[in-house]
Amino acid sequence: MQRIESDSLGEVRVPAEAYWGAQTQRSIENFPFDSTERMPIGIIRGLGVIKQAAALVNRRHGLDPELADIIEKAAAEVASGKLDDQFPLVIWQTGSGTQTNMNANEVIAGRANEMLTGQRGGKSPVHPNDHVNMGQSSNDTFPTALHVAAVEALNREVIPALDKLSGALSGCAIAWKDVVKIGRTHLQDATPLTLGQEFSGYAQQLRSAYDHLRHAELHVLRLAQGGTAVGTGLNAPEGFAEDMAAQIAELTGRPFTTAPNKFEALGSNDALVQLSATLATLAVALTKIANDVRLLGSGPRSGLGELELPANEPGSSIMPGKVNPTQAEMLTMVCAQVIGNHQAVIVGGMQGHLELNVFKPMIGAAVLRSMHLLAVGMESFAKRCVEGIEPNRRRIAELVERSLMLVTALAPEIGYDNAARIAKHAHEHELTLRQAALALGLVDEATFDRLIRPEEMV
Amino acid sequence: MQRIESDSLGEVRVPAEAYWGAQTQRSIENFPFDSTERMPIGIIRGLGVIKQAAALVNRRHGLDPELADIIEKAAAEVASGKLDDQFPLVIWQTGSGTQTNMNANEVIAGRANEMLTGQRGGKSPVHPNDHVNMGQSSNDTFPTALHVAAVEALNREVIPALDKLSGALSGCAIAWKDVVKIGRTHLQDATPLTLGQEFSGYAQQLRSAYDHLRHAELHVLRLAQGGTAVGTGLNAPEGFAEDMAAQIAELTGRPFTTAPNKFEALGSNDALVQLSATLATLAVALTKIANDVRLLGSGPRSGLGELELPANEPGSSIMPGKVNPTQAEMLTMVCAQVIGNHQAVIVGGMQGHLELNVFKPMIGAAVLRSMHLLAVGMESFAKRCVEGIEPNRRRIAELVERSLMLVTALAPEIGYDNAARIAKHAHEHELTLRQAALALGLVDEATFDRLIRPEEMV
Amino acid sequence: MQRIESDSLGEVRVPAEAYWGAQTQRSIENFPFDSTERMPIGIIRGLGVIKQAAALVNRRHGLDPELADIIEKAAAEVASGKLDDQFPLVIWQTGSGTQTNMNANEVIAGRANEMLTGQRGGKSPVHPNDHVNMGQSSNDTFPTALHVAAVEALNREVIPALDKLSGALSGCAIAWKDVVKIGRTHLQDATPLTLGQEFSGYAQQLRSAYDHLRHAELHVLRLAQGGTAVGTGLNAPEGFAEDMAAQIAELTGRPFTTAPNKFEALGSNDALVQLSATLATLAVALTKIANDVRLLGSGPRSGLGELELPANEPGSSIMPGKVNPTQAEMLTMVCAQVIGNHQAVIVGGMQGHLELNVFKPMIGAAVLRSMHLLAVGMESFAKRCVEGIEPNRRRIAELVERSLMLVTALAPEIGYDNAARIAKHAHEHELTLRQAALALGLVDEATFDRLIRPEEMV
Amino acid sequence: MQRIESDSLGEVRVPAEAYWGAQTQRSIENFPFDSTERMPIGIIRGLGVIKQAAALVNRRHGLDPELADIIEKAAAEVASGKLDDQFPLVIWQTGSGTQTNMNANEVIAGRANEMLTGQRGGKSPVHPNDHVNMGQSSNDTFPTALHVAAVEALNREVIPALDKLSGALSGCAIAWKDVVKIGRTHLQDATPLTLGQEFSGYAQQLRSAYDHLRHAELHVLRLAQGGTAVGTGLNAPEGFAEDMAAQIAELTGRPFTTAPNKFEALGSNDALVQLSATLATLAVALTKIANDVRLLGSGPRSGLGELELPANEPGSSIMPGKVNPTQAEMLTMVCAQVIGNHQAVIVGGMQGHLELNVFKPMIGAAVLRSMHLLAVGMESFAKRCVEGIEPNRRRIAELVERSLMLVTALAPEIGYDNAARIAKHAHEHELTLRQAALALGLVDEATFDRLIRPEEMV
Repeated sequence: MQRIESDSLGEVRVPAEAYWGAQTQRSIENFPFDSTERMPIGIIRGLGVIKQAAALVNRRHGLDPELADIIEKAAAEVASGKLDDQFPLVIWQTGSGTQTNMNANEVIAGRANEMLTGQRGGKSPVHPNDHVNMGQSSNDTFPTALHVAAVEALNREVIPALDKLSGALSGCAIAWKDVVKIGRTHLQDATPLTLGQEFSGYAQQLRSAYDHLRHAELHVLRLAQGGTAVGTGLNAPEGFAEDMAAQIAELTGRPFTTAPNKFEALGSNDALVQLSATLATLAVALTKIANDVRLLGSGPRSGLGELELPANEPGSSIMPGKVNPTQAEMLTMVCAQVIGNHQAVIVGGMQGHLELNVFKPMIGAAVLRSMHLLAVGMESFAKRCVEGIEPNRRRIAELVERSLMLVTALAPEIGYDNAARIAKHAHEHELTLRQAALALGLVDEATFDRLIRPEEMV
Repeated sequence: MQRIESDSLGEVRVPAEAYWGAQTQRSIENFPFDSTERMPIGIIRGLGVIKQAAALVNRRHGLDPELADIIEKAAAEVASGKLDDQFPLVIWQTGSGTQTNMNANEVIAGRANEMLTGQRGGKSPVHPNDHVNMGQSSNDTFPTALHVAAVEALNREVIPALDKLSGALSGCAIAWKDVVKIGRTHLQDATPLTLGQEFSGYAQQLRSAYDHLRHAELHVLRLAQGGTAVGTGLNAPEGFAEDMAAQIAELTGRPFTTAPNKFEALGSNDALVQLSATLATLAVALTKIANDVRLLGSGPRSGLGELELPANEPGSSIMPGKVNPTQAEMLTMVCAQVIGNHQAVIVGGMQGHLELNVFKPMIGAAVLRSMHLLAVGMESFAKRCVEGIEPNRRRIAELVERSLMLVTALAPEIGYDNAARIAKHAHEHELTLRQAALALGLVDEATFDRLIRPEEMV
Repeated sequence: MQRIESDSLGEVRVPAEAYWGAQTQRSIENFPFDSTERMPIGIIRGLGVIKQAAALVNRRHGLDPELADIIEKAAAEVASGKLDDQFPLVIWQTGSGTQTNMNANEVIAGRANEMLTGQRGGKSPVHPNDHVNMGQSSNDTFPTALHVAAVEALNREVIPALDKLSGALSGCAIAWKDVVKIGRTHLQDATPLTLGQEFSGYAQQLRSAYDHLRHAELHVLRLAQGGTAVGTGLNAPEGFAEDMAAQIAELTGRPFTTAPNKFEALGSNDALVQLSATLATLAVALTKIANDVRLLGSGPRSGLGELELPANEPGSSIMPGKVNPTQAEMLTMVCAQVIGNHQAVIVGGMQGHLELNVFKPMIGAAVLRSMHLLAVGMESFAKRCVEGIEPNRRRIAELVERSLMLVTALAPEIGYDNAARIAKHAHEHELTLRQAALALGLVDEATFDRLIRPEEMV
Repeated sequence: MQRIESDSLGEVRVPAEAYWGAQTQRSIENFPFDSTERMPIGIIRGLGVIKQAAALVNRRHGLDPELADIIEKAAAEVASGKLDDQFPLVIWQTGSGTQTNMNANEVIAGRANEMLTGQRGGKSPVHPNDHVNMGQSSNDTFPTALHVAAVEALNREVIPALDKLSGALSGCAIAWKDVVKIGRTHLQDATPLTLGQEFSGYAQQLRSAYDHLRHAELHVLRLAQGGTAVGTGLNAPEGFAEDMAAQIAELTGRPFTTAPNKFEALGSNDALVQLSATLATLAVALTKIANDVRLLGSGPRSGLGELELPANEPGSSIMPGKVNPTQAEMLTMVCAQVIGNHQAVIVGGMQGHLELNVFKPMIGAAVLRSMHLLAVGMESFAKRCVEGIEPNRRRIAELVERSLMLVTALAPEIGYDNAARIAKHAHEHELTLRQAALALGLVDEATFDRLIRPEEMV
């Protein structure tokens, strides 16, 4: 069953059960990508919030109260996710997101008309452009939706997961603060530290990442709404930009404000580029942490073997009994994709032309995907790996004991060159440091024992 | 309704209607990403092909013929897509793809057991590891599945779309071979060429891309299968690698061969890295082409205005009557993501450790997504943009006529410096070249008219 | 003429006139890259500052005052650039920068010994490790040098250049605040704005970039010094980290502090990764700005032609009289390299192992090169392009006048659909908007003239 | 001492001793980057070859033989490197390389004039544009120079270094073909292989890289020369393109041909993009190899310890006796920069506008730097690391012996599930596999000893 809808290019057949109209239908046909390429639902819900806010604000600026109320109600359904299945469009469409904005306008009009008239769809009494999109353009609405969706994802998903992983790592730092272990620089044995100190470095990396994300968020909290087509605010009433930012802030509980310059807010996507950049820096940090964890957990018999990671699943289809660091693998893969997504965002961000950057759907989708991947990745890595790690204390102690780099503690007393002779002698003759030091007569027993105390060297 | 399945870590509850077993179920719970992050279906079907081939080959190497036959039948269902919904796992799992390989092993065993006993699932009489995975390891099977999926996507999607776009551009090159237009270098007016020549350059870019893709494919046609766990082929019978490559080639109709060195085939993913690199080069070419098309089509009244692009949809939610180059926007966004995906692939490809690179699912998914995006993107751009372009001949002629760079044709006769004086004089005094040339007395009328003939300058 | 120097691996011949010793000489021979690959001189001078600070601090912690004074003097020569030619090592060496740290230790010891004894080089009375490197390790000293060099380059080069360009763009925004021009979205004609508004967006982009850079700097102001080999501070006296940060702050006049966690400061380079990320975001913004400028300046007769860019040089070796937007080309090339450098930094930043990230020289060199390129690029673009731009007012006015998108101002009065009909009618019949509007009878003359006033639409 | 030179913009003062003229001088002043940013000398010499070839070809097409001969002589001096110091311009200039092309034209004219008249510089009797640049434009000459330089660097530097490293790795593969060692997948113990097999995988990676490079070279062997300003060949005589390619091939001994489509050859840089892409794939492979080598060489007492790497220098300024894998660190840093450079090349490659891509100097410089870095990096890594590696046979044997993953060989006999029970039992109770297998009664002694023979498992 189909019905006829129309737009400025003419008539189009639309499935009878759909709320959407002609422009949405055209886009389905013009961009035939797989359904796996759908516009992220966070953006759709962001549009719902905006349209709801616009109905409230437009009511104060002269929109017929009856229409305003019904638009607000329909938009709230979009914002709540109730109409998710009415948004079939993909990421790869017009670069301003116009078609997804029209999808929202059409669905909200179509649903509002249904509530008012019993007839689904159409443009009367509620018109998608004249009423739902009143005071707006895709050019300011779509980037506003990206910012709303990004701030939501950051606060609901990324920050809590970051906190959880940061907490888990800090927990390790405290729990193992007395576990003295060999340090390694250049992957070669170095002077000792505690396992707790090692994990404190990871926790600090995440604290810095948190700080950078919070700064990047400040830029994203500034909304383009009110710029309309090119940034001048044409067809939007006086004060619309400020009113909309305040209304969206109220609806979401996030401290959105209106962007200080709408030409920047439409012509560039620098706020999202910098957020993406900061997510990539977080991915860099997480890669380092996950790599270290799997390296320290390598073994069980032919690796470093200092950590025992939780066994969440059988590790091999052919090697019975094998257990692998799968959470670390998942996390490092996630990070690789986030780094790649940032590259895509850079490429999109730099190519805007004049009054509008037309890589918005790609940038928005990439940033949101990166946030989802990092959020689930961190949360899962914390819960299914870090929280279950056990140090192999016997192995750790054994490695400290036989290390040659404890010789460093002798250097301030006997000089770098003499200390080096001891280390080389021990290495070549497979001696302990103590044996080598005494054999070369470069230090006496009492001095050696006073200086070479790993637990004092951390 | 649930049933109990088990693996080497113990028992797990599985939905009664599922064909999968314990390991798949564990992975669902251990990697809780959104369903939008599912392992690409091409990889699943590739695994179906491999398991089907393995049943045929193992039969010849001693697998009970009854079991072999039923495994082959169940595997063929996976290969054909009939069991797509039995593969719920996401990309972000163990880096070897073990869990997706086990998903295939479990589903095929579960389906085979159902056909044999009426009981869905389980490990008897068909065991997922001992029978379905016989002679295989995830470590050789999963990369083989990636290669099979990549070659299929390349040949079924990318190459046909490339051919179509290449053909459309060549068509333009021929159709407009006599349309003399102004050239532009540095975005500044230059000497003339024909519109056909301009498009012939684009067509040539795609021909080169085709050539590079075909070379990259050669590496991907070499399969890891037969290396088993670490490349040695442990637990696979003599000749298994060669037999499997031949069998897979037969089933798919693609000229797969066994990789000359299995240690490389497991430890690195260089073949896919180079394929991805080549897709990114194609994305670079397409970006240039799409950018040029939208630039030449800019206007209608304040741009270059040489081309009229098809109007596929209304362009603006606020500006009535606006039409935008949406296919070019879609294609350049797609290209940005492909370039980003290549970055992800590079990051994954460089981080393998020793006998296994454990970024395989990410790499495979990124390459397959890039191919889907490019294929649909090119096909749609060809069909909905290039094929419908019309040159605005009046505008084109007008621009050639008033150009100053035709002066270049005078240089061999009167010297570079004198020709430069004419151009500068015309520019400063807003004259035609002819007026300026004669005013300065640097050339006579007859010579001017003999040399300055745009149609001879192309 | 050569002399003999020695280290723990034995004796090495060194040019007699060199101040350096055995380890520097070994590195010259072990890493035979071209001299174009030298370690950036900013890092060398940063090491000079650190060694000077260390002499002052070590004096208070027990270093022989005579040695301390002479070391300080020699180190000050390094910091001032007087010994630049004594640093022949390249970027591509050990990943901790140990050899460049030893180059500094050896040169300072060699110069101090010369001042004390008349003999250049050697290890006595001043020893490179025991005295010059006292309380330090390459592992904390080299990253400290990178941070010192980065903060200097940021404040001396990048920020002033950013300020200059930002000021130039703001100047344009003010000067042209009344120049009404056609807007363009999707490269298609849109509603009008002023040229000043357009440039105000660019200025805002740079203000945001400034803000992001200042935040990124905060992390870089935290110094690793005091962590010594693995972050524990072994062999450094109590309070050394804090004292060194204070001393370096005093010597440089920058507000350096000691890093809150030395394990993070050695094991990761996240501070530089985030600085590099922010430089890349700046490059994204600059690319957009430079691209817009050259697009608006395209022509002179077949482009948009709204801006006239300064003619700094002849543009073509074959086309006489041609002038090109070379400053924009330089700047966008610079930005491409900065974006690439960030990719290199990401790849290096993610690959640290355990207690030390060993991609430090590459990361440091890439970040410093990016800063030099951006600084000179922005300064030159401001001075030789932006400050000399003249709007072509006649061309700008002409384009506004004939635009169809002014129709947008009718939509609130007559509805989106009717307004669209007018625009389409005008486009198809090559009419003015006014002609089309009246022809279709959708609006009367008075209304048209009241609503369609470009100067009111901005 | 200065003299006056002039161009179409007017007069300029030039150092008296310089051969260059007005345009070179303007560029020095317009792009004030550090001298470390000079245009790579390979490009300059490539221009020398082209100008030499042009003199020879133009002589046959009517250029005064006396002028042709003297131009050829002067150009040969540029090609040979004799005039390297006459090329002060930096990479960051006009995006077509016009100024460097003019630098070559001016220096050659200036030198030719000196030989003819005794007066250095000037435009008479030899004119830089009319004679030296005859039949050429920067737009075809500069990309031709990039291709000539790239092919030279590939064949003189990269391929020999690749061969050397490939040979060194193959040598290891042969020498250690019987050294049975533990395999590791997911950094966890796996089934055994030989050390020779492990290195055979690395050698194979380089063989594939060689193959990909040779294919990429084919595209680079096609020259733009003959397209002149926009690809049409305006002002070049009939057959000039073919004659020039043949002449350049003769002068260089490389099989250059003329590009089949000059619009592609000017408007895109796809050939260099693909070469860069392939260099990045090589960097991916090298990163994996170098990472493996340093991981296997980690220790000496707390790492994997299977390989002993050559000690080329003292490893630490604070830890006496430390030796680090510095060649691996150098190589992986080099690879990171190459990967970053490719990103820059992608960004430049995608942004061409219409008839000319104006990111040519950046692209050329990045590709040439990548080649230099890879060439020296591979050669040095081969010579100073790979060729000096010694396996630690005792350590290797010890690790194989105690591995649990040998259990895999039991699976075909006793089933995957039983084999898994043995491995888990051994792991939990710290038993040998043999002890665990017999304790569980799942296999008898004779069978165990028959199946578990590491030397048979490789």
